[in-house]
Amino acid sequence: MTATELTSDASLAAVADLAAQLRVDSIRASTSAGSGHPTSSMSAADLLAVLITRHLRYDWQNPRPAANDHLIFSKGHASPLLYAVFKAAGVVSDEELMTGYRRFGQRLEGHPTPVLPWVDVATGSLGQGLPDGVGVAVAGKYLDKLGYRVWVLCGDSELAEGSMWEALDKASHYQLSNLVAIVDVNRLGQSGPTELGWNLDAYARRAEAFGARVLVVDGHDLAAINGALAKAGEAAGEQPTVVVAKTIKGRGFSEVEDKEGWHGRPFPPDMAERAIAELGGVRHLVVRGPRPEAVPARESEPAGTAGGYRAPEYAVGEKVATRKAYGDALVALGAADPKVVALDGEVKNSTYAIEFARAYPGRYFEMFIAEQQMVAAATGLAARGYRPFASTFAAFLTRAHDFIRMGSISAADLRLAGSHAGVEIGADGPSQMGLEDLAMMRAVHGTTVLYPADGTSTAALVEAMALTSGISYLRTTRGAYPGLYRAGETFPVGGSKVLRSSDHDEVTLIGAGVTLHECLHAAGALATEGIAARVIDCYSIKPIDTAALTAAAQATSGRIVIAEDHHPEGGLGSAVTDALLAAGQQDLSIAHLAVREMPGSGTGEELLAWAGLDASHIAAAARQLTGHQ
Amino acid sequence: MTATELTSDASLAAVADLAAQLRVDSIRASTSAGSGHPTSSMSAADLLAVLITRHLRYDWQNPRPAANDHLIFSKGHASPLLYAVFKAAGVVSDEELMTGYRRFGQRLEGHPTPVLPWVDVATGSLGQGLPDGVGVAVAGKYLDKLGYRVWVLCGDSELAEGSMWEALDKASHYQLSNLVAIVDVNRLGQSGPTELGWNLDAYARRAEAFGARVLVVDGHDLAAINGALAKAGEAAGEQPTVVVAKTIKGRGFSEVEDKEGWHGRPFPPDMAERAIAELGGVRHLVVRGPRPEAVPARESEPAGTAGGYRAPEYAVGEKVATRKAYGDALVALGAADPKVVALDGEVKNSTYAIEFARAYPGRYFEMFIAEQQMVAAATGLAARGYRPFASTFAAFLTRAHDFIRMGSISAADLRLAGSHAGVEIGADGPSQMGLEDLAMMRAVHGTTVLYPADGTSTAALVEAMALTSGISYLRTTRGAYPGLYRAGETFPVGGSKVLRSSDHDEVTLIGAGVTLHECLHAAGALATEGIAARVIDCYSIKPIDTAALTAAAQATSGRIVIAEDHHPEGGLGSAVTDALLAAGQQDLSIAHLAVREMPGSGTGEELLAWAGLDASHIAAAARQLTGHQ
Repeated sequence: MTATELTSDASLAAVADLAAQLRVDSIRASTSAGSGHPTSSMSAADLLAVLITRHLRYDWQNPRPAANDHLIFSKGHASPLLYAVFKAAGVVSDEELMTGYRRFGQRLEGHPTPVLPWVDVATGSLGQGLPDGVGVAVAGKYLDKLGYRVWVLCGDSELAEGSMWEALDKASHYQLSNLVAIVDVNRLGQSGPTELGWNLDAYARRAEAFGARVLVVDGHDLAAINGALAKAGEAAGEQPTVVVAKTIKGRGFSEVEDKEGWHGRPFPPDMAERAIAELGGVRHLVVRGPRPEAVPARESEPAGTAGGYRAPEYAVGEKVATRKAYGDALVALGAADPKVVALDGEVKNSTYAIEFARAYPGRYFEMFIAEQQMVAAATGLAARGYRPFASTFAAFLTRAHDFIRMGSISAADLRLAGSHAGVEIGADGPSQMGLEDLAMMRAVHGTTVLYPADGTSTAALVEAMALTSGISYLRTTRGAYPGLYRAGETFPVGGSKVLRSSDHDEVTLIGAGVTLHECLHAAGALATEGIAARVIDCYSIKPIDTAALTAAAQATSGRIVIAEDHHPEGGLGSAVTDALLAAGQQDLSIAHLAVREMPGSGTGEELLAWAGLDASHIAAAARQLTGHQ
Repeated sequence: MTATELTSDASLAAVADLAAQLRVDSIRASTSAGSGHPTSSMSAADLLAVLITRHLRYDWQNPRPAANDHLIFSKGHASPLLYAVFKAAGVVSDEELMTGYRRFGQRLEGHPTPVLPWVDVATGSLGQGLPDGVGVAVAGKYLDKLGYRVWVLCGDSELAEGSMWEALDKASHYQLSNLVAIVDVNRLGQSGPTELGWNLDAYARRAEAFGARVLVVDGHDLAAINGALAKAGEAAGEQPTVVVAKTIKGRGFSEVEDKEGWHGRPFPPDMAERAIAELGGVRHLVVRGPRPEAVPARESEPAGTAGGYRAPEYAVGEKVATRKAYGDALVALGAADPKVVALDGEVKNSTYAIEFARAYPGRYFEMFIAEQQMVAAATGLAARGYRPFASTFAAFLTRAHDFIRMGSISAADLRLAGSHAGVEIGADGPSQMGLEDLAMMRAVHGTTVLYPADGTSTAALVEAMALTSGISYLRTTRGAYPGLYRAGETFPVGGSKVLRSSDHDEVTLIGAGVTLHECLHAAGALATEGIAARVIDCYSIKPIDTAALTAAAQATSGRIVIAEDHHPEGGLGSAVTDALLAAGQQDLSIAHLAVREMPGSGTGEELLAWAGLDASHIAAAARQLTGHQ
């Protein structure tokens, strides 16, 4: 086969031919795979044909250099179209498209993920690509300071997700004139018509009210699309652009055009044959669209802190809240590592991200009360090579659970900090208490979960987060507790600290964060009764220090008290017992103290006692395990 | 003290006096507690004084009858104001306000919860009260068909949450003219100015674009407020109303008015004294505002299904997807119980909620792709006594994690169904795979977590959900698998089924959903090798059948293989081992098979094999545990 090349001066007739190819390839790929979303691809094929031929500045051979535009499919289910674009760009072969799509072990997954070098972020959970794109555009405008544009193809259905409006709100707040959302208004969702149908005016009014410049086009009129995208790419003013395109689902194949019942269904082979015939057959056009401007090579940035991190220091016994130490450490990290940036959900004076915001205002991005957008922006910033730290109350990170999950699929290196963990916060009551966060963060693939008990360990673990790939999570505590460790002590990820031990320990007390201090008090009380207790600071919950845990279990005849300021499921207790059982540890006698009822208000002390997590309950559990009652 | 009563014809001067009382009491309560948000209360005091005196139709002695208006504080941190309102209504004493607020064991919690009979839903995680209010208003308009109005006090900061726009979108879609959002635009958030400050026009344009009627007022001009609330309460047209009120944070105390740094800070006693003096001192006015119209008593509805549920029947061996059985069962439940309603996030043809939507269109509420709003609407419907079942893909329920968490604090009886669990779904890839849902749902307080493996058990468990209080969760599978149980078999919550056992079992295989079928195949293969395996269907993951698990552990020398189509943390494996350890079971040898790497696309079979969850891997694990290698 001979490939015809389309350059950016190709005629609209040639672009129409390309659009037909994108449709045909979307059909072929999905029919060959036996699943996928051809009709959702066909509605947007004209938009993409114009975009990649004339507007997207992209060096397909070098997908990661600084100056390339970014192309994000927020409607990730239109993956057949995206992969057809990759074929048209000459980077995916027709054979791969026909044999790799949605197959086991292949990279053309059902929804796009960054296993492909031209994909910035995983999509497929709707309402996330545009928020992610905001993060990329923030990086472009404020950090990279490069002229690349971020083009995001959105579905109309996903505009029902509030996160899309968080994204537009932040895009206008941050004046992201480098961001273009192209909304494929094909009127039909998965199970029926969308809420707003072809009410383009409603979409336009909403986007305008949220601060965007809006261009409404017929999404099948190539000249109109070309004009809109040219205007969108010009970045006049300080507004993001939303292109609202009226399209027809299944466009190009008369049997399915604008018909319900064809979402997420490939055409059977006979239908596919008719569709391809109607579309003029298989083509192998190759696009040579605009290329990015050359960017002078920059000095390579140092990787990580390059040893320059100077941890804040706290004296042993000095009372400091770990959330305060987080802020201090983030400032120190910011000094050592120019790639570190911070975000917060309008609680920066509680999480202490405010210290970073004051020290490095150019690298701090306030996300206001929009936790989904906060994590998405971090994901976009990470896609550009920055090291984002995003913080809010641990309880409110649950708001971003789906974004954290997708961040893991994106293989994004995200650093999250959740403050105000547990009933320890006291008077504010359960809505503000992080009691599910450890379970949430542990269950996401590839995460690192850290929970320090003092300032020194917090400072060390914040640096560790900067050097850790994947998603890392730091759980911090509201109140101030005495320093336990000398400055300079090391806290490897996956380690633990034995704070108290003897050669005649009868029981092991395992705590983290506030409960570690209670364990220490309990051990002190037990010691006066002649009961020797080993105390372990389990500051690294995932990965966990299996060796130290099994050693302690063996030394104390399997008698272990675990105390955690968290609901009983999926947190520290599970982490410890999972590790011990996986290591084959036998004869365990576990007392698992956790928050088993719904808390109300009170002081932290009252609530820790109420939950059975204070020193007195820990000591009682230890006495019971050891038979000293 | 003598209480002066204010009736609905009280003069505006008297209402102003009440507003001063609300401010004074907000100050007194928070200062006495040593924490709380007086300034956020003071900005909204005029709005509330007018509302409760002249517009809120409420029988304070009977908070739960059908005809009362509803009052929801979406800005839950303004709890001092809410409790001051309760004092003014005569239902909370001044003494309780001064000694109960934010204290241990008391009901005036830091943020409102339904432990108070006048509170419908817990708030405090911002951006949830309005979405919850949408559910209450849906109930009022479409189910109760009563004239009550739903008044929601919103903060300006929380309009940064996308969920607020999901709420307005649905409010206009469902033409909720009985819903009034009052936005207290005091310009200052927790850590600084809000994004939009006093740009009332921006708020108005956004709300209008989302379909609301908007009334902009000076939130300290009592006459203007009165006019706006009168208009808002009239419910002309078919639009929700948004009252955008320009207010001053800390209004009434010149030392803090419109000043940063006073969010979430009570005044020290000396300041409080000056503030109270400036506001004219302590008062004890009592409001006798409008009362609801009398509603004719209805015949009492039957509680639950009243034994009328006729479960759909499936033959043993007949292949049926549990998601399909969910839809069938929901239809059967709808016939038996008129209080059952259903919601879905625009995937009803995948979750099979579509069957209920077709059978009972008047009791089905499409939430489109807005999972947060879906769970919030369910919470509001539950607050009105309905039994909502809300469904989407298990993966996308993570989007609503914070709403589920708050639903638990609301003590709402919610029924959630998550389909497309695990790698079993195959080609669509990881973005669509529920791999964290069991961990999420288990860690929420008071939940019930169910995971059936066939149609018969699904049908039984759907009825059990209707009869279960708190939040219950049903995990369903995409593919169709053979029926295991005869019609009529019972499946108590907290139970399990031993599907295969003998008096010489060497190992226990525990599965649920798809992995149970794999366990059965594995047991069959092991039997041909002379290895007897017990197989347990752990359909009830929380609560779990500890007795059956310990019996099996004892019978098989502690050798247990657990297979779950979920990440290893917090799911079935944790539930089983938590139960065994809590029961003091010793000598466990656990092989825990779970999804330990990031999946891609493939067929369900390929991916179950890749994850090590198919019969062959289960059998291999059993052989290893039993030493038959």
